[in-house]
Amino acid sequence: MKLPTSLLDILHATFGAQACSTHEAERLAYAYDNSRRHALPDAVVFAQAHAQVETLVRACREHGVPVIARGRGTNTTGATVPVQGGVVVSFERMNRILRIDPDNRLAVVEPGVLNGDLQRALAPHGFFWPPDPTSSPWCSIGGNLACNAAGPRTVKYGSPRENTLGLRAVAGTGDGFRCGTYTSKGATGYDFTRLLIGSEGTLALITEATLKLTPKPSGLRTLRATYRDVTSAAHAVARIMAQPVTPCALEFIDDVALQLAHDHGGDSVPLAGAMLMIEVDGEPATLPSSVDAISRAAHGDGLETLHVAQSAEETQALWSARKALSPAQRTISPNKINEDVVVPVSRLPELVHGIRQLSRQHDVLIVTFGHAGNGNLHVNLLPRDEAEHERAHACLADVFALVIALQGTLSGEHGIGLVKREFMPLALEPSTLGLMRNVKSAFDPDGILNPGKLLP
Amino acid sequence: MKLPTSLLDILHATFGAQACSTHEAERLAYAYDNSRRHALPDAVVFAQAHAQVETLVRACREHGVPVIARGRGTNTTGATVPVQGGVVVSFERMNRILRIDPDNRLAVVEPGVLNGDLQRALAPHGFFWPPDPTSSPWCSIGGNLACNAAGPRTVKYGSPRENTLGLRAVAGTGDGFRCGTYTSKGATGYDFTRLLIGSEGTLALITEATLKLTPKPSGLRTLRATYRDVTSAAHAVARIMAQPVTPCALEFIDDVALQLAHDHGGDSVPLAGAMLMIEVDGEPATLPSSVDAISRAAHGDGLETLHVAQSAEETQALWSARKALSPAQRTISPNKINEDVVVPVSRLPELVHGIRQLSRQHDVLIVTFGHAGNGNLHVNLLPRDEAEHERAHACLADVFALVIALQGTLSGEHGIGLVKREFMPLALEPSTLGLMRNVKSAFDPDGILNPGKLLP
Ligand SMILES: Cc1cc2nc3c(=O)[nH]c(=O)nc-3n(C[C@H](O)[C@H](O)[C@H](O)COP(=O)(O)OP(=O)(O)OC[C@H]3O[C@@H](n4cnc5c(N)ncnc54)[C@H](O)[C@@H]3O)c2cc1C
Ligand SMILES: Cc1cc2nc3c(=O)[nH]c(=O)nc-3n(C[C@H](O)[C@H](O)[C@H](O)COP(=O)(O)OP(=O)(O)OC[C@H]3O[C@@H](n4cnc5c(N)ncnc54)[C@H](O)[C@@H]3O)c2cc1C
Repeated sequence: MKLPTSLLDILHATFGAQACSTHEAERLAYAYDNSRRHALPDAVVFAQAHAQVETLVRACREHGVPVIARGRGTNTTGATVPVQGGVVVSFERMNRILRIDPDNRLAVVEPGVLNGDLQRALAPHGFFWPPDPTSSPWCSIGGNLACNAAGPRTVKYGSPRENTLGLRAVAGTGDGFRCGTYTSKGATGYDFTRLLIGSEGTLALITEATLKLTPKPSGLRTLRATYRDVTSAAHAVARIMAQPVTPCALEFIDDVALQLAHDHGGDSVPLAGAMLMIEVDGEPATLPSSVDAISRAAHGDGLETLHVAQSAEETQALWSARKALSPAQRTISPNKINEDVVVPVSRLPELVHGIRQLSRQHDVLIVTFGHAGNGNLHVNLLPRDEAEHERAHACLADVFALVIALQGTLSGEHGIGLVKREFMPLALEPSTLGLMRNVKSAFDPDGILNPGKLLP
Repeated sequence: MKLPTSLLDILHATFGAQACSTHEAERLAYAYDNSRRHALPDAVVFAQAHAQVETLVRACREHGVPVIARGRGTNTTGATVPVQGGVVVSFERMNRILRIDPDNRLAVVEPGVLNGDLQRALAPHGFFWPPDPTSSPWCSIGGNLACNAAGPRTVKYGSPRENTLGLRAVAGTGDGFRCGTYTSKGATGYDFTRLLIGSEGTLALITEATLKLTPKPSGLRTLRATYRDVTSAAHAVARIMAQPVTPCALEFIDDVALQLAHDHGGDSVPLAGAMLMIEVDGEPATLPSSVDAISRAAHGDGLETLHVAQSAEETQALWSARKALSPAQRTISPNKINEDVVVPVSRLPELVHGIRQLSRQHDVLIVTFGHAGNGNLHVNLLPRDEAEHERAHACLADVFALVIALQGTLSGEHGIGLVKREFMPLALEPSTLGLMRNVKSAFDPDGILNPGKLLP
């Protein structure tokens, strides 16, 4: 596709030469995301104001040209890859924190603000915004909202859907609109705020977000437990979540992942059948009883060691295994298939056991780790050659089937994007998918927003 | 409207004689709700199974006949009044608790389960479902979800939108569908669960809900603070919410309400310029420091007394004023206009001050009380004769204008229904309302579900 001159003229007039490009080099840079899929857009624009985004969407709608929102391209599902060409609108320069309002426990931000920058700005006020993807220093709030991205703290504090009050956005119709409130509750009409969260830029482009802030607890304690095998660790997770003290992190790492991290990160990483990293937070006076309750639940068949960090340095040392994991995987397989399935917590033992079997059956190297307190595991298939890559794809379908059989779903936090849309019918009935298509049309009648994503 | 025979035949075949009626007496009983508005339906059916609801909606769609969902009719906005006739489908007999699953912190219920019955069933497991309207013994979970109904605990634990994992429902198209998950997080497609919550039966009829449970804290402390005037109490609310210990109830009662409650409930109700009822919960070891933090924030200009209950009886005594309020209001004005506006907490002083002025200006008796921790105040206009009733209606428009000027919104928990829909354009832009109409059509193309509600 080459863009019509009449559209290019509008883009230039709206964004100016510094924020609008059709140069091949620029287009190439915005053809990729962290999924390693790629497809060239026809133009790239850098938005800085809501009105520009309205003009952009209206003009593209008139010309029948796709518009693909982009934060920082860190998503793992190909969600920003312009598979049908069109205009990529990057929000990286629309990155002002407009208001921090501790009295009302809210912040108003532009979509390009980096998650890590926001957390840093909130810290002096004693607040934080709970969603904390590991990519926090490099990913944008707009991207976090569009993916419903989460992280370790979600087990206690919820995902973006539980931590966002309102949005400003531009629908595929070209209409700018506000939804939600500046208040901590509301019952005035349909909840578009949550509908847009997790919609991966297919319904509307977010130009402003009102985020709900949470007071930062002043105390934190870190525990590390190792187990004989993955099954006993998974049972411990279920026990921990069935008692009243909710940890603010409950991360699982399997034996394969520990071995990788150990090879890469050194002896501070324990070798065991599986490991749990657990954190509890709260006022300092409450921590001893919380640590006690968690320790009791962590105990049980298969527990080998249980260690409570006594200092900040020790806490850092305990987390080293988790930190060594990402680089370690990359050295093994440049083509890793990165899934983030989720099951009810009590089904975790069946999930880890089933994945172990599938790994053997398909002869594919799989590591599992992740946010076990939510039942959300990263299942990473690490094919080391072309043949294993093909086997990995067959294995993947079986992994999803297993997850669905355990009453789970395809994605806990990464979303669907390009790479998982063909699997959507496994998770959702035809009637639900049909209604999702209707809602897509309600916001984006001509299907110009991020076509080819999310819905099969 | 008289229903066509072909439709009546389907209703009889689907529901049987015991659960399908066109008798005038039955129709009269389902013409009303707690709004005191009324309009006769043409038939009443009592659903007990999802498949029946699918058949009902399909048949009504074919015949162009409205379908109005009804829980227990306790809503205050006329949301169940069949203003265009049609079939009222009552869920009162579809009231089984299908699963209580403490290990996964969830319960699966039919929509007719009463909120209070669910809480009682959860208690032995050490869990509760946070939404706790004062009407809890008489209102249904289906009604709670459809209104996004809340209560005192919402300030700490959130509304139905933060406490529901998934739904089964029947859209206005007649399609049955499931949405959401059995897991505590998910990023698989559009969030229909939250979209249906608060949609007042205008998009789909809920036939099953998967609710997120919260561990019940083992300790609770109750504080009562009285203030010189409403403004100093409102400032105290803002101070309490700006510090890190979040109370699990923070209720405000103004001087007029206290006087009423005192007249009705006796001397145990204090007379003061305003009163706050505050509760903190948590593990018992944490309560003293929480009470300290709250007390410090409650102190300030205008504080007159601060009392911490030392026993269960004393706690009950402290709450007596709040409890006496509803009956007291009824004795004064049978025609009370019951609003539940919400503003950012820091704007509460301006809200209570402004309402005081409007009460004088329009010469209308107004009491304000409610869930101040969320900035959600019940503003009850209590006209004592016909003339005051007319002045009250003029006053109401000014109340809403004030609320919007303070960045608030029309409803915190009661919803819009029939009585507030004409005010929706005050709160929402035309573009947002337009998209809401599009979404309504996406779920209910022929507009048969609860017509005349929510959208203007
Ligand atoms: C090392 C690493 C660690 C990670 N860890 C986690 C983790 O722990 N948890 C987790 O959930 N994810 C994680 N991710 C995935 C990724 O970081 C998140 O999905 C993140 O939210 C993406 O943000 P982004 O700014 O990069 O968005 P992008 O990748 O640019 O875009 C993601 C989606 O959002 C849409 N979008 C972006 N901005 C807007 C907007 N303004 N309006 C509408 N739609 C928009 C895009 O169209 C696309 O569909 C990780 C990624 C990496 C590389
Ligand atoms: C004394 C009293 C105190 C109250 N206190 C509070 C309070 O503290 N907080 C608060 O929020 N509210 C309160 N309310 C209002 C009311 O109780 C709530 O709105 C409640 O949620 C209504 O439940 P219900 O079962 O009576 O629903 P109904 O009144 O029957 O219906 C309410 C709405 O829900 C829809 N609906 C019902 N069932 C379904 C279903 N299965 N599928 C789709 N739509 C459905 C109806 O169509 C209607 O739009 C109070 C009311 C009274 C009388």
